[in-house]
Amino acid sequence: MRTSQYLLSTLKETPANAEVISHQLMLRAGLVRNLASGLYTWLPTGLRVLKKVENIVREEMQRAGSNEVLMPMVQPADLWEESGRLADYGPELLRITDRHKRPFVLGPTHEEVITKLVANELNSYKQLPLNLFQIQTKFRDEIRPRFGVMRGREFLMKDAYSFHLDDECLGTTYQKMFDAYCRIFERLELNFRPVIADTGSIGGEKSHEFHVLADSGEDDIAFSDASDFAANIEKAEALAPAGERPAPSQEIEKVELKLERLIKTSNLDLKTSVKTLLVLGEVADGAPARFVALVLRGDHQLNEIKAEKISGIASPLTFATDEQIAEVANCHISSLGPKGLTVEVVVDHSAAHLSDFVCGANENGQSFTGVNWDRDCGEITIADIRNVVTGDPSPCGQGNIEIKRGIEVGHIFQLGRKYAQAMNCAVLNEGGKNETLTMGCYGIGVSRIVAAAIEQNHDENGIKWPKAIAPFQVAIVPMNMAKSARVKETADRLYDSLLQAGIEVLFDDRKERPGVMFADHELMGTPLLLIIGERNLDAQQVELKNRITGEKSLIAIDEVLSLFN
Amino acid sequence: MRTSQYLLSTLKETPANAEVISHQLMLRAGLVRNLASGLYTWLPTGLRVLKKVENIVREEMQRAGSNEVLMPMVQPADLWEESGRLADYGPELLRITDRHKRPFVLGPTHEEVITKLVANELNSYKQLPLNLFQIQTKFRDEIRPRFGVMRGREFLMKDAYSFHLDDECLGTTYQKMFDAYCRIFERLELNFRPVIADTGSIGGEKSHEFHVLADSGEDDIAFSDASDFAANIEKAEALAPAGERPAPSQEIEKVELKLERLIKTSNLDLKTSVKTLLVLGEVADGAPARFVALVLRGDHQLNEIKAEKISGIASPLTFATDEQIAEVANCHISSLGPKGLTVEVVVDHSAAHLSDFVCGANENGQSFTGVNWDRDCGEITIADIRNVVTGDPSPCGQGNIEIKRGIEVGHIFQLGRKYAQAMNCAVLNEGGKNETLTMGCYGIGVSRIVAAAIEQNHDENGIKWPKAIAPFQVAIVPMNMAKSARVKETADRLYDSLLQAGIEVLFDDRKERPGVMFADHELMGTPLLLIIGERNLDAQQVELKNRITGEKSLIAIDEVLSLFN
Repeated sequence: MRTSQYLLSTLKETPANAEVISHQLMLRAGLVRNLASGLYTWLPTGLRVLKKVENIVREEMQRAGSNEVLMPMVQPADLWEESGRLADYGPELLRITDRHKRPFVLGPTHEEVITKLVANELNSYKQLPLNLFQIQTKFRDEIRPRFGVMRGREFLMKDAYSFHLDDECLGTTYQKMFDAYCRIFERLELNFRPVIADTGSIGGEKSHEFHVLADSGEDDIAFSDASDFAANIEKAEALAPAGERPAPSQEIEKVELKLERLIKTSNLDLKTSVKTLLVLGEVADGAPARFVALVLRGDHQLNEIKAEKISGIASPLTFATDEQIAEVANCHISSLGPKGLTVEVVVDHSAAHLSDFVCGANENGQSFTGVNWDRDCGEITIADIRNVVTGDPSPCGQGNIEIKRGIEVGHIFQLGRKYAQAMNCAVLNEGGKNETLTMGCYGIGVSRIVAAAIEQNHDENGIKWPKAIAPFQVAIVPMNMAKSARVKETADRLYDSLLQAGIEVLFDDRKERPGVMFADHELMGTPLLLIIGERNLDAQQVELKNRITGEKSLIAIDEVLSLFN
Repeated sequence: MRTSQYLLSTLKETPANAEVISHQLMLRAGLVRNLASGLYTWLPTGLRVLKKVENIVREEMQRAGSNEVLMPMVQPADLWEESGRLADYGPELLRITDRHKRPFVLGPTHEEVITKLVANELNSYKQLPLNLFQIQTKFRDEIRPRFGVMRGREFLMKDAYSFHLDDECLGTTYQKMFDAYCRIFERLELNFRPVIADTGSIGGEKSHEFHVLADSGEDDIAFSDASDFAANIEKAEALAPAGERPAPSQEIEKVELKLERLIKTSNLDLKTSVKTLLVLGEVADGAPARFVALVLRGDHQLNEIKAEKISGIASPLTFATDEQIAEVANCHISSLGPKGLTVEVVVDHSAAHLSDFVCGANENGQSFTGVNWDRDCGEITIADIRNVVTGDPSPCGQGNIEIKRGIEVGHIFQLGRKYAQAMNCAVLNEGGKNETLTMGCYGIGVSRIVAAAIEQNHDENGIKWPKAIAPFQVAIVPMNMAKSARVKETADRLYDSLLQAGIEVLFDDRKERPGVMFADHELMGTPLLLIIGERNLDAQQVELKNRITGEKSLIAIDEVLSLFN
């Protein structure tokens, strides 16, 4: 490709509204342009990268035995009614109406369409297992699209769905997909980790996310420092402290200070305090509100996903309002404490292991010191309701927890029979009886991978693409081509021979100063530059510059092609 | 691919609601499935074909110097406001509203988005010409989707847009695109013709459609039987008859018969009669309705596209109601005639060449015979307002017109400055002045091509794919594999060696009767079958069957690979 016939569109300045480095560099290097909130046009350079990612994903899915299909983006709303998700999905599901006033949705995912398809097409267990995937445009009406294509509204996704007669077969395919995902992210040369994940609103039983590790990631990942264990912090188990709870050694005492103030003025360790939250309890439709108190050690954070799975707590987790708290405990939230509360109390393992702790006294501006569970408080339920923190023992039994930020680029689920049951997806089994299928689903955020790769591979001058997804393999940068016929002739010849050899080469034939050209190619992250200058041509050489290492060397023109063998 | 891991999904019966053969065969051969009106899921076999078409289109666009981009499907409505098409486009443009109540449309085409993009990115004439394309999912809310993917609502389209400083440069790129389109349809092995076309609602100055010739086509194409001339009938010029109009030889006479009845009872040649239509004339906003009469020879059809371009006639062409006709002429439409009408009269060349013709008398149940224009009628305007018919002299000056049916698979336009002007798409020219760009646009219906290819390539047993787009190159069909270890071993070995050689092979490892397997492969149109049977294995041979020719022959197993060199 000659730049004169190409839409290079690099920017010198960093656009003001781009927060993360990948978004900044995707704009500056001319990979994407914003059309509207969360909507991006992929320019030629960006699309070259996107297509390479797409092809690696496709190849590995096919190698793992998945068949490619293509489902519509516009889906009839009645399918979502049938699965029960039309009501559940919330406003990220964009509902639309066609000219005949029939209701449709823009597909954020395709469980309904594929389950219906398979329900219609399959009739015998002999056709199982079946694994289908597509690489297709999705739409999710994010309330706050951000970070460029990392959290856009319209994006390219690979979604796969597998169908099985039994869970053992599902487990086998799940492992195949797990392995295929590892190969995909290895081929993309990304520093990634599969992590144990929550199954969230899609539902199901077993799930892994694949995270690219990067400081700008939106997820916290908990790792063991001594094993392969990794889990999304949403899901990582906090083990109960070892040993017995120490016996009480202090008398309970009321202090005329707000808990926060008491801790500060007495310079208490947060680990000797507990904090108390109030959430709605589960009730039958129409029944009066019920509340549950959640108690955590002062230095710990509530894990909402763990909490909302506890029986008796309303899902989604809903915090009590200030008015509701005042009704229950006659005080402000900052003075809540477990002693004397008349509602059910759920205490995190770590908080439950304390003795002689401080807490709110359920009176505004009053606290207790020297509190002990059995002696001073009513009945409690003990559960894991906190996020793990650095240094916690790993739930795998080996080593301690470290926490890093991750960008979720893949997610695999064992869905089970949720959709198949709702949509009557069954086949005749060996005994001739109708049997509902069990399903897996497997997603990869294709456009997000482009951004994630940049988060992991850049320096102050621009992008440093992994070889497998660089938009071009090499760029030819001639020095003062307008003034030197020799330079022009060499550049033209080299370009033709590289093209003929099937090398993806960008020939910078602009009439720009060398500094401008170098800056653009560093920004775009082309792995290799061939710099053609008058002074090296007597020796039949060109200069070779490596974007990753920064190394420069001279290479004989005749040997350029051998770089790509 | 082994059929046991594949979604074959062939149907024995022809689905009732599929009218055209391509739709029937796409359903029966398991290429697509209907999700809702005009919405189709591409099954693995269909998608393999679609991807091959897509790749040929991509390769030839790139070879012609076009750069691939990818624009969003969801577009802000304000861009369409800016171009003026939000009001003009009609209900095929699906309007949607996001969660923040902002108006969007589902893109039926991308002139607005690309023009805005180029307006933002380009600033100098040095960056011109620029040619950008995408292969992307479009949505058009057709009122009556039909013929399967031929006229669906969501479909895959290649759309390209070129930008130029002047019309000469546009003309050069237009010719390049014309040539690229010819190469694309040649590589697809389709019997196609580029035809002169109307520019329609997209607007612009010069336009060609590319039609695949097939009886099921929705368009009539007029060809010269003696030259390369071809035009959509919408656009094909009907030449004025040669020579002078014959002099009157009859007296005018009123007959107490309706025109239709008169022609029938007197056994008159339709060519000696004229028929008269009434349409709305162009008026200023709020002015009272005005009417124009259109007069054609009795055997000719009105060409609405030609008529609505005549000055003084309202666009879009609107026929007068029965009430309006009664007001103007005090009779029913079947008794309208040019004599004595008080409105403007536009007469087609052929009708204007008649003397002594018959026509309605503007009184119910009354006709005239022996009518002559100058003697009996008022002032008339003569124009080309009819469709050409078989046998007309070709407007190219050579030969006569033949008419065939065509399926439009491509359309190229010289758009001119319509969008660039509306959206302020300009660059600095060599003199440093701002200059509005001139544009071309170039579409190919990628999904429609799959259907069009089937319309041209099938027999009573199924599809006969052109080699370039067959879903598989070859299928292995083993006879009674379950009973013969030799057959199974040979089939497995052959499959592995074909796979290793990069051949796209389908291994039919189902436990089906040979007849079922043969019927499925004929239906799916696999070009070559390798039939492995016990009786040929002693001689180390397999049977080779050609889907196109029907020929069968024996081939040494060792020589199978050489078939694909």
